[in-house]
Amino acid sequence: MGSRSGGVADHQLGRQDRRRRRFAVHLVDTAWGTTFWGQRYGDWDEVEPPRATATAGNPAQELDFLRFCSDELLACYRAERDVLREHSSAPVTTNFMTTNCKSVDYWRWGREVDVVANDHYLTAEADRNHIDLAMSADLTRAVAGGRPRMLMEHSTGAVNWQPRNIAKRPGELARNSLAHVARGADAVMFFQWRASRFGAEKFHSAMLPHSGTGSRVWRDVVRLGADLGSLAELRGSLVRADVAVVWDWESWWAMELAWRPSVDLDYRERVAAFYEQLWDAHLTCDFVAPGQDLAGYRLVVAPSLYLTAPGTAAVFGRYVRDGGTLVVSYFSGIVDDNDAVHPGGHPGALREVLGLEVEEFLPLRAGERVSLTGGATGDVWAEDVRPHGAETVLEYADGPAAGKPAVTRHRLGGGSAWYLSTRLRGDDLAGVLRGAYRDAGVEPADLPRDVEVVRRHGPDAEYLFVLNHTDVDTRIEASGTELLTGGRCDGLLTVPAGAVAVLRTG
Amino acid sequence: MGSRSGGVADHQLGRQDRRRRRFAVHLVDTAWGTTFWGQRYGDWDEVEPPRATATAGNPAQELDFLRFCSDELLACYRAERDVLREHSSAPVTTNFMTTNCKSVDYWRWGREVDVVANDHYLTAEADRNHIDLAMSADLTRAVAGGRPRMLMEHSTGAVNWQPRNIAKRPGELARNSLAHVARGADAVMFFQWRASRFGAEKFHSAMLPHSGTGSRVWRDVVRLGADLGSLAELRGSLVRADVAVVWDWESWWAMELAWRPSVDLDYRERVAAFYEQLWDAHLTCDFVAPGQDLAGYRLVVAPSLYLTAPGTAAVFGRYVRDGGTLVVSYFSGIVDDNDAVHPGGHPGALREVLGLEVEEFLPLRAGERVSLTGGATGDVWAEDVRPHGAETVLEYADGPAAGKPAVTRHRLGGGSAWYLSTRLRGDDLAGVLRGAYRDAGVEPADLPRDVEVVRRHGPDAEYLFVLNHTDVDTRIEASGTELLTGGRCDGLLTVPAGAVAVLRTG
Amino acid sequence: MGSRSGGVADHQLGRQDRRRRRFAVHLVDTAWGTTFWGQRYGDWDEVEPPRATATAGNPAQELDFLRFCSDELLACYRAERDVLREHSSAPVTTNFMTTNCKSVDYWRWGREVDVVANDHYLTAEADRNHIDLAMSADLTRAVAGGRPRMLMEHSTGAVNWQPRNIAKRPGELARNSLAHVARGADAVMFFQWRASRFGAEKFHSAMLPHSGTGSRVWRDVVRLGADLGSLAELRGSLVRADVAVVWDWESWWAMELAWRPSVDLDYRERVAAFYEQLWDAHLTCDFVAPGQDLAGYRLVVAPSLYLTAPGTAAVFGRYVRDGGTLVVSYFSGIVDDNDAVHPGGHPGALREVLGLEVEEFLPLRAGERVSLTGGATGDVWAEDVRPHGAETVLEYADGPAAGKPAVTRHRLGGGSAWYLSTRLRGDDLAGVLRGAYRDAGVEPADLPRDVEVVRRHGPDAEYLFVLNHTDVDTRIEASGTELLTGGRCDGLLTVPAGAVAVLRTG
Repeated sequence: MGSRSGGVADHQLGRQDRRRRRFAVHLVDTAWGTTFWGQRYGDWDEVEPPRATATAGNPAQELDFLRFCSDELLACYRAERDVLREHSSAPVTTNFMTTNCKSVDYWRWGREVDVVANDHYLTAEADRNHIDLAMSADLTRAVAGGRPRMLMEHSTGAVNWQPRNIAKRPGELARNSLAHVARGADAVMFFQWRASRFGAEKFHSAMLPHSGTGSRVWRDVVRLGADLGSLAELRGSLVRADVAVVWDWESWWAMELAWRPSVDLDYRERVAAFYEQLWDAHLTCDFVAPGQDLAGYRLVVAPSLYLTAPGTAAVFGRYVRDGGTLVVSYFSGIVDDNDAVHPGGHPGALREVLGLEVEEFLPLRAGERVSLTGGATGDVWAEDVRPHGAETVLEYADGPAAGKPAVTRHRLGGGSAWYLSTRLRGDDLAGVLRGAYRDAGVEPADLPRDVEVVRRHGPDAEYLFVLNHTDVDTRIEASGTELLTGGRCDGLLTVPAGAVAVLRTG
Repeated sequence: MGSRSGGVADHQLGRQDRRRRRFAVHLVDTAWGTTFWGQRYGDWDEVEPPRATATAGNPAQELDFLRFCSDELLACYRAERDVLREHSSAPVTTNFMTTNCKSVDYWRWGREVDVVANDHYLTAEADRNHIDLAMSADLTRAVAGGRPRMLMEHSTGAVNWQPRNIAKRPGELARNSLAHVARGADAVMFFQWRASRFGAEKFHSAMLPHSGTGSRVWRDVVRLGADLGSLAELRGSLVRADVAVVWDWESWWAMELAWRPSVDLDYRERVAAFYEQLWDAHLTCDFVAPGQDLAGYRLVVAPSLYLTAPGTAAVFGRYVRDGGTLVVSYFSGIVDDNDAVHPGGHPGALREVLGLEVEEFLPLRAGERVSLTGGATGDVWAEDVRPHGAETVLEYADGPAAGKPAVTRHRLGGGSAWYLSTRLRGDDLAGVLRGAYRDAGVEPADLPRDVEVVRRHGPDAEYLFVLNHTDVDTRIEASGTELLTGGRCDGLLTVPAGAVAVLRTG
Repeated sequence: MGSRSGGVADHQLGRQDRRRRRFAVHLVDTAWGTTFWGQRYGDWDEVEPPRATATAGNPAQELDFLRFCSDELLACYRAERDVLREHSSAPVTTNFMTTNCKSVDYWRWGREVDVVANDHYLTAEADRNHIDLAMSADLTRAVAGGRPRMLMEHSTGAVNWQPRNIAKRPGELARNSLAHVARGADAVMFFQWRASRFGAEKFHSAMLPHSGTGSRVWRDVVRLGADLGSLAELRGSLVRADVAVVWDWESWWAMELAWRPSVDLDYRERVAAFYEQLWDAHLTCDFVAPGQDLAGYRLVVAPSLYLTAPGTAAVFGRYVRDGGTLVVSYFSGIVDDNDAVHPGGHPGALREVLGLEVEEFLPLRAGERVSLTGGATGDVWAEDVRPHGAETVLEYADGPAAGKPAVTRHRLGGGSAWYLSTRLRGDDLAGVLRGAYRDAGVEPADLPRDVEVVRRHGPDAEYLFVLNHTDVDTRIEASGTELLTGGRCDGLLTVPAGAVAVLRTG
């Protein structure tokens, strides 16, 4: 133990020594669970980065190593930023890729940049990829907290690094750009200015393509510049939401470590599935970090929150007792921040707030489906749920959990906590969420599918964005000045197929 | 040649030198067949472990290296065991995984342990995985010879290392455990006692799960303990069989070396396919090593015995001439134990006993099927078979061997040798085997599918295990004392859906 | 810059220095396009072979490295050949694998061997693999220029290195062998003489198989020897063609570098697709190198000529203006020989000859199909084509380019240039080519599918090969002496199912 730092107080230690002390405490806590795999450490000097193993490594060590990597990247950024600040008063930032960069915990980065700058590229072959764009824009806003936000990179058309680099169709460049603005970006930039004739990026689209200024893309870029100019007054206006979704890089990391109950457990898939339902209900939502105060939200959704620290669980409990509506999906609340299973039956951290215990996980076979009462269909996962206070909303009608609760609702204090123990999608998930919306007093908007509506709130005015992703014109009740055209709208706004309108309504 | 051991007799040499001498002789024998690939050795010192090559390595060397690895693992075990024996009289063993550990030739290990201990985990997503369990239990018994046997590891529920860790359903834990007992195990153990909160195995089921002693799994474990107690008198009783299946790790190794005629040739698949037919016919079978005396068996099945040493072929010949019934599947008898093709047409080692020659292999395309007279369908493989004494049982009706024999039978001395030149499965394979059963005087039992019946024979009594893997009750004609309940049964035993009965009948 | 060779004239420099100078010039030309990826070189000494990168390497450097490897292999061959020539007057050659060896630019090798020797092995599982064989034989003839040609290696039956080594059926060995002769080979050899009992090739077919001289394969080999003897007078006779297909290893290399617009772009697939159509139209074709003089051909097809040097484009222009018919497929003419995009809109090198500009690539999704007017269906690729002189032959009826030209024809001088902007196959491609055949005055023969007809022209006689790959007899109008049987044919030649006839007709 010679290398430990002895009886010195934490604040007296340097950074390296503080890390050692923290690690030492952690090792003592978890050592006895890893003994029979020989994964014990007697001293800081025995700790190595995770290496290839014959079978599985120590998951808690791997999780800590992922934290360590994120921390070190941030330390590197800080060091570079501080040098710049010594010599310049120019704002400093770096490009985030909020929903797509698994390796970095952006909750800790947002406060370190002067402007939060995000990159977002469509997954070009994906269906309805504008929803993924919205999710990235919303998470960027969350990561920024109150800081200014910008879109640093996206593309005018096809990229060059996806398997099949589908080109954007006319109108898509503008819709993509303005969707970022609608959700809080105050600037929009592209990679790249002019298509290079040489090198690895020569087939990446550009503001000025190979075919030059006679091209449609060039004309659309020029027009976007004009459009953004006419939206200058929106700078600094805010987006507000009644609904929050919990996003947690640590749960993402921990869920993807080896030897989980099923390879079909997928952190990001579940977040995206719930986000898609909120988007389809035309509900604007915030993302929140685990443990963040939830007061002010009517509805909070926690998908796949496998790692749930005791403090996070306590916030959920307070939130529900104080009248909030919480929705939790399966394989949440299982471990603490050392990847240690919470004592007792699953989900240890959330048994109380959910009013139930999961006696046994029942992963489903590849392609296997289970029917629920009421007609919904689940796949991937089922559970042997024993209610302790929760009421059963839907039961399993067949499969390994036949006759047991599939979806439950726990009235607790002034609120309610919902639990989904199987993977629901599409209309089946929407159906369950409608129940939670009722509990929360949240009202989905009655608008056509793929018409996106978002509001920004300025000090003197409110701005309504309507993005029509469909191929038919749409009408929406609203009045105000349409900023892109300068026209006046009284009562009924028509947004042509594929187009965008921005109304000053306040 | 300085490093060779010269004119010294074998017994005068140390282990390392004996190996060198054996290798040197082997290299001289096979060198001329590998000349144009530059795979020649002039001296022991030139022999390296197999390495990555631009194309194919020397398969005989790779085969020898697999033997070498198995030998060295055994030597390591022996060294450790001998140390233990110097200090203790406790029995010494190690955990085998008989049907699933390709890298170790257990025929050479059985005699080196005091108790043969097997691990068996279900392939949880597989259909009818209780048949694979039975195969593992039977091979464990074979490897043990007369030594005591135990099940060292299996699981109370889901494991954590398969893609989707399907949980066992109620009753399955007991059926699995007692199936091992039925086939010769005198003890049953689990991994693990109590689910750990930490580390890589925390989602592996346990005797005491996270949900504690209030759980179904815990109750089932406690009940199994009681059941095993009531079977104590079975300890040491024997399982007897009229049918034997040849199992050979060396054929497995050799068949999977590079550049075989088809990637669809699969040693273990064929053994399992024949085993499944015997299981479905309610015929208990032994496994035997190649070259082992076959007297006493009515029927012997040799699936995919690609590597057939001359001595093994001689045993088959004697067995058939003495009245036995032999069933051989395609791609058997091709090479000797140096992976050298037996001289002349295929299958060199078995032409005489099978009464035929294979002029040309006719591997089939992916998904291609061939029809046989009588309605059966083969895939993967066909052959241009020329009978020299064998009669044709089924012909190819189409495909590359149309009009030629597909299944043959050779009467030789007092017995008969069957040959299947294409891959048959399910009912098609069952149909051919019924012919062999008739030759052998072996009678499949008339019992429902998935009702497993096995007998153990004690010095004073006989024990009938009935394992009902179906979801309906089954009745079976039998009389005696049911040991798990202590009840008396006269004439008709009812075994409920999913349950097990053990009757003392002797 | 110390390592550069200064102001010395090129011919005064050694080979290494000439390479350095060339590289230096090239680097200056392209450096500015790769700056933002840090892929700059200030000096020859900074140039390393391509290495693993976090994202993409410098494609121009990777292309040059592929050239360098091909050059060095050739230099190695030359060095060995020159040693042999000092000591022997025996002809020197090495075995090519013309259509299947991507790593070597055989256009530069043909002149360096005394006899062009090709290896060709069927892709045994492929449908109609005799077309791939013909393509290999035709490319071998092209690579040889006027030099003698031989088939150095093929197989009598199955090989051993494919996933499923399908055996050749009776007659196939002879058809394969004589197809090579028909297309210019003056000798036919096999790997291997006698099947070896040992080593990696023991399951590769041989002239003398394991089953010995009583086998069908042996008898067929003996007969082939006799057949080849009766064709001795053909030695040195020539094959002539009206149609040429451009083959270019450099385009193949460059198209498969990283970050192209779609992973479905496939150089060899397109060449094979066009070749198959010509084969099905019973049109014998030559292969030509890019930039080679095209005078004398009625029709020239350039599939996937992504890399088109200015000189190659100039040859196409002259050829069309002088009355030729040119067919070009999508993603041709994009870059020069430094993988630099030709300035302006795509396809920079071919805009003028094709009379059009491609404003944007429109790669299609996996499995996506687009309909063309007239009923054809394209996949993989579409384009936003703007005609500048070309007429529209077929339009896109749906998909991302709906209403725009899909297939165009540009009348230029005395000829015409066709452009296909989507991937057409089978009858759809045949339909478009029929239009080009009409322009070219080329007439497909009216013969059954899979009856292959090729002519060799000797100084005193003409030889007609008819290879019947079908399972029914075929009749063809022809007169002369059938050389394999010595029989006389007047007016109508019958070629039995699976057989070959060679008629001296001149």
